[in-house]
Amino acid sequence: MQLLWEKNSIIQSMEEHPDRIHRLWVEQGHEYLSNEVIQAAKRLGVPFRVIPREAFARKFKNSKSRVCLEREEITYTNPDVFLKTSSSRANPVVCAFDGIFDPQNLGNIMRSAACLEIDGIIMPKDRACGITETVATISRGGIERVAVARVVNLARYLGEMKKTGFFCYGLDERGTVPLWDADLTGPVCLVFGNESGLRRLTRDTCDQVITIPTSPTFSSLNVATSFAIAVYEARRQRLVKAVS
Amino acid sequence: MQLLWEKNSIIQSMEEHPDRIHRLWVEQGHEYLSNEVIQAAKRLGVPFRVIPREAFARKFKNSKSRVCLEREEITYTNPDVFLKTSSSRANPVVCAFDGIFDPQNLGNIMRSAACLEIDGIIMPKDRACGITETVATISRGGIERVAVARVVNLARYLGEMKKTGFFCYGLDERGTVPLWDADLTGPVCLVFGNESGLRRLTRDTCDQVITIPTSPTFSSLNVATSFAIAVYEARRQRLVKAVS
Repeated sequence: MQLLWEKNSIIQSMEEHPDRIHRLWVEQGHEYLSNEVIQAAKRLGVPFRVIPREAFARKFKNSKSRVCLEREEITYTNPDVFLKTSSSRANPVVCAFDGIFDPQNLGNIMRSAACLEIDGIIMPKDRACGITETVATISRGGIERVAVARVVNLARYLGEMKKTGFFCYGLDERGTVPLWDADLTGPVCLVFGNESGLRRLTRDTCDQVITIPTSPTFSSLNVATSFAIAVYEARRQRLVKAVS
Repeated sequence: MQLLWEKNSIIQSMEEHPDRIHRLWVEQGHEYLSNEVIQAAKRLGVPFRVIPREAFARKFKNSKSRVCLEREEITYTNPDVFLKTSSSRANPVVCAFDGIFDPQNLGNIMRSAACLEIDGIIMPKDRACGITETVATISRGGIERVAVARVVNLARYLGEMKKTGFFCYGLDERGTVPLWDADLTGPVCLVFGNESGLRRLTRDTCDQVITIPTSPTFSSLNVATSFAIAVYEARRQRLVKAVS
């Protein structure tokens, strides 16, 4: 069971996956403030209950809010299904993370991923934080809209993706080609490392290593920021190409 | 007095403003882990002391680290000086925030601002969080490298900037021109709102309102993310223009 506390996450969750919701709980006396959430529950047929403050506090001991959505645990997409689905689309953009542990970063990534409409995210099973409650809250509901696959061996999986036609770009400070000079209009997989960059094996698996040009003496962009910039650039190139 | 706890922030602070440092404190037994910081202090002539664990705990009651830099409070740039300095540069990029309260966001913004080398940041005096310890830590030292001016009346200040030759672009979901179609190669001021967009008066002061095209049903990019994307786009246009 997963609990959501933030208004936008709750509404997105009810809208995208009403079948996975157990119940919405609202603290008595806060119906007015939670009105938007309650109206959405009514519209979507999600069961909800308003309970007294003491009962709410007893039920949700570490409550961070006056409203709580109980839902099933997030489900990840099976890697084989992920590959089949994304490679069947026209010019998909997917992103892979070679080690991501900070839920704040992952939440920001999921939010931007939903805004900028990418086709999915790949994470290693053992070198990443999962889609936790914190990630869900920070993503503002972004987790409901973007497929996430967790793979045992990232380098091997990237190899499989390349066989189905994806071009794998690694993003790393040591890359020599600026992001904007890379052709991001075909099926691409953008691969990001952690704070210390891409690991050797992952880097070697990529077709090309590119970089976001930054200050030579202050170069470390946050991974969620690098991600948003790279995905924006892909979106820009595609929309500019479409109208030209 | 301001305290810094994070390695990168401490090193940047010592490098950029050695005159503003009081002292570096290190907890005994952690000299090895703090070696990079200690070496930088030696190199830059910053006084430092290694003290026993109990003394460190007593001195820094809410210590978040084994190392602490005591420095003067951050100083903001006088708005008149800011305007004079930035307008005298060749094609400066400055950014203004019309209400920014989340230290996490401001920290991320300062980090990206240093990486992407903008010329300065403008914030309202009363509708913004200051450069707090949290902001300093998250910025990884970015606060040491980017001038910040706090102004009483943002709309009026933007008016002054326009008179000195800045073109003011407001970024807002309601803008109709995509970011990449705006000419960002001259002296520009990019103006960002809070989660609910730009306020009316601020928007009306801008020369043009532009937008980062996002999903029509999931449009709310985080302000720090919007900022990084817009500044990247300005950097891209300038560097592409320079080589063509």
